[in-house]
Amino acid sequence: MNEFELIDRLTAALPSHPAVVTGAGDDCAVLDLGAPETLTLFKTDAVVEGIHFTHDCPGEKIGHKALARCLSDLAAMGGTPVAALVTLGLKRSFDVGLVESIYAGMNTLAARVGMAIVGGETTTNPERLLISIAVIGTVPRGRQILRSGAKPGDAIFVTGELGGSLDSRHLEFEPRLAEGRWLAEHFRIHAMLDLSDGLAGDLRHILNRSGVGAELLSSAIPISRSARTRARAESSAKPPLLAALTDGEDFELLFTVAGRVAVPLLDAWKRQFPKLKLSCIGKITTGRGITLRDKNGTRPLSAHGYVHFS
Amino acid sequence: MNEFELIDRLTAALPSHPAVVTGAGDDCAVLDLGAPETLTLFKTDAVVEGIHFTHDCPGEKIGHKALARCLSDLAAMGGTPVAALVTLGLKRSFDVGLVESIYAGMNTLAARVGMAIVGGETTTNPERLLISIAVIGTVPRGRQILRSGAKPGDAIFVTGELGGSLDSRHLEFEPRLAEGRWLAEHFRIHAMLDLSDGLAGDLRHILNRSGVGAELLSSAIPISRSARTRARAESSAKPPLLAALTDGEDFELLFTVAGRVAVPLLDAWKRQFPKLKLSCIGKITTGRGITLRDKNGTRPLSAHGYVHFS
Repeated sequence: MNEFELIDRLTAALPSHPAVVTGAGDDCAVLDLGAPETLTLFKTDAVVEGIHFTHDCPGEKIGHKALARCLSDLAAMGGTPVAALVTLGLKRSFDVGLVESIYAGMNTLAARVGMAIVGGETTTNPERLLISIAVIGTVPRGRQILRSGAKPGDAIFVTGELGGSLDSRHLEFEPRLAEGRWLAEHFRIHAMLDLSDGLAGDLRHILNRSGVGAELLSSAIPISRSARTRARAESSAKPPLLAALTDGEDFELLFTVAGRVAVPLLDAWKRQFPKLKLSCIGKITTGRGITLRDKNGTRPLSAHGYVHFS
Repeated sequence: MNEFELIDRLTAALPSHPAVVTGAGDDCAVLDLGAPETLTLFKTDAVVEGIHFTHDCPGEKIGHKALARCLSDLAAMGGTPVAALVTLGLKRSFDVGLVESIYAGMNTLAARVGMAIVGGETTTNPERLLISIAVIGTVPRGRQILRSGAKPGDAIFVTGELGGSLDSRHLEFEPRLAEGRWLAEHFRIHAMLDLSDGLAGDLRHILNRSGVGAELLSSAIPISRSARTRARAESSAKPPLLAALTDGEDFELLFTVAGRVAVPLLDAWKRQFPKLKLSCIGKITTGRGITLRDKNGTRPLSAHGYVHFS
């Protein structure tokens, strides 16, 4: 049983409440707490030493990443962060300076995006540092963007460039809050999420929840410089396209809009965010699963990569 | 530097937001998200294998405790829970049955108190199981009970009986949600918290935030049966009174009200909650710190216990 199968099994029987607009299975939970103009977004995420960052990683970067991962999920709903709580699992012999630098990294990001950190707690996790963050955000009532609205004929877009995040980007990325909010305000985005496990895997969440398929155009996938550099430098590295499709922790936005909106959206994007690439990488289909089209034809794409032509 | 000193240092420089009504340092953060009649309560808490529960602890009890600890903090503000998110840090070779039984324990408690579980995530924490829970609740606007309102002359009350929680109560306690809400609705409670680190230590949080002292009457402290049984059974165990003052994880409510309200409150309590003891254990003073009065006079009480007469 993998993580996703386990989560499906666990979420099947969860208790609910009248305030729940969207429960488990999207980037954030959505709650209606009675504010006339807004809904509440609610998200938690954890990072663990040796898994999400190395033992020698500077505290500022650990703190930045821990908070930025949650904010990336808010961005993927079109939301605005309000407040975070921080749970630190500290080793018995923890370094106070490290803890302070983790907070410095979180505080700098929180202040930049205009949100509060309203406390939290420390506990002991003897073998390794663990940081769990919970965030509350808001979204204008009815403007939240779910994973479930993709429709056949939609254009599929992705921000930035993909792959090779492990070089440094996974510790330094900026959550796409302004971009997510702008998209929610100006366009009818059908479905959106943030890329955390790799395009080939994450796109599947949109497809499964929307009951559709997708065809990607391999020449349109934006490949990062570090994915290309890695492939050149190491013969054992993934080919650049495969890295862009399957490397995790890109934290870019992946979304779909009606096909006729694709060109006006691209034009408006270039005026609004001239420094951030936006790529139309394919379309939503009536089929199931993902196919990858290149000059030789189409082939199925699994979460782990494409299937080579036999 | 102990946990509380570290937290003080970290919370001194946290970024804020106009929606923050009460930030770090109380049982929950309080946010104003724009609902006309309610404020939002926000809290996280974590439990760790080998620290908050043993390796052989049944999953249902682990799940119950993890959620109940957060709910106890909501109760201490007079709040009502709405939704929780669950972060599971799982060992590499985790048992799916254990995870399902943890969720069963959480789901049962959540359903009983009428709240939702809206998802969460799983991550890897290789050496030990860790559960971090985030909860959102509501409180009628202006009725939230902080730690900071105790006044000289206030009567100090505690629910239930104290000490010996480690026998079993720490895994089975019911968060005092109905009691906290009833208190907030019917009386002007000046200050309240839930007992997690022991009466002698936790009362100090109210005193420090309110700028007052306290005198406790040793004969009025409600001592649990298990604290008495332990003391009789083991010569190395704490004397029962010391256990009631310093054992952690009671998860009872500690609160103060104006002295003239004490008797009507006790009378109304007995009608409303006939099965749950409520004890008036002392009074708030203009001094600093805590003194303990018995038939021999008064003596200072530290967070670790009373100072013996020399």
